[in-house]
Amino acid sequence: MTTRVQRLSINYKTLEEFKKFRENGLEELSMLEDLQADLIEDNVDSPFYGIYEEGKLVARISLYPTPAKYDRYFEPATGYLELMKLEVLPGYKGKGYGQALVEYAKSLGRPIKTNVRLGAQDFFLRLGFCAVKYNPERDRGENPYVWQPPSF
Amino acid sequence: MTTRVQRLSINYKTLEEFKKFRENGLEELSMLEDLQADLIEDNVDSPFYGIYEEGKLVARISLYPTPAKYDRYFEPATGYLELMKLEVLPGYKGKGYGQALVEYAKSLGRPIKTNVRLGAQDFFLRLGFCAVKYNPERDRGENPYVWQPPSF
Repeated sequence: MTTRVQRLSINYKTLEEFKKFRENGLEELSMLEDLQADLIEDNVDSPFYGIYEEGKLVARISLYPTPAKYDRYFEPATGYLELMKLEVLPGYKGKGYGQALVEYAKSLGRPIKTNVRLGAQDFFLRLGFCAVKYNPERDRGENPYVWQPPSF
Repeated sequence: MTTRVQRLSINYKTLEEFKKFRENGLEELSMLEDLQADLIEDNVDSPFYGIYEEGKLVARISLYPTPAKYDRYFEPATGYLELMKLEVLPGYKGKGYGQALVEYAKSLGRPIKTNVRLGAQDFFLRLGFCAVKYNPERDRGENPYVWQPPSF
């Protein structure tokens, strides 16, 4: 069985499902306010991708396209995806969903940067990410890891 | 009894104590390499502050001075402290150490910005922080909260 990763539409149903995730904060609140004010259309471009099991969202990731002018990680500067909010719900871990989401991000063919936390270093190293050389001014306590497509 | 917050010297002893904390990553590794290569002096300016109990480091915070030119949160732009890596070791929670570290940061008299995670919103709201209006381009999934000294 292959794990299907879907881009998530920003709508009331999705935001209701997001409440089950720990990393639910100002972004989700802002999206809810925008929906209520009719400021965004259903199915607007979304940074969120997820995996459903029996109709229930059980894992998600967000991928923020970052233009080359804001790049401080790659040489030469390039547009890349900032990977955040990778999270698998309790009870659905150990099924490869986290890996499937990161592999999906890699399949988009753009460099990726992420801030690795809490013992997830080995997970990202196994998936081909590298730790950058720490730069105190730029990184200020973050743990930036990057991945580049083979052709880069 | 008052809780005493100390600025932490970057030396082998401190880095050994840091290993007990979960948010131990590229920054600490880089500091270790710099020490080994004699690139930094013992007692160099450190972004870390902590609380000791019976000679053991049990809570820490890092405060990174950020110049006004990089400010994207305050109006008008101002130098501020980026608060990160606030952590109290298991077994030492519930003693007010987290609050003491944030109150110490506030006592430095400069605006503070932090990315609030995992249900710590109420903690920061109680300490006078406010959620910023979420800006997708700037915040990309972060939960920025800010605090300003009364005189600002």
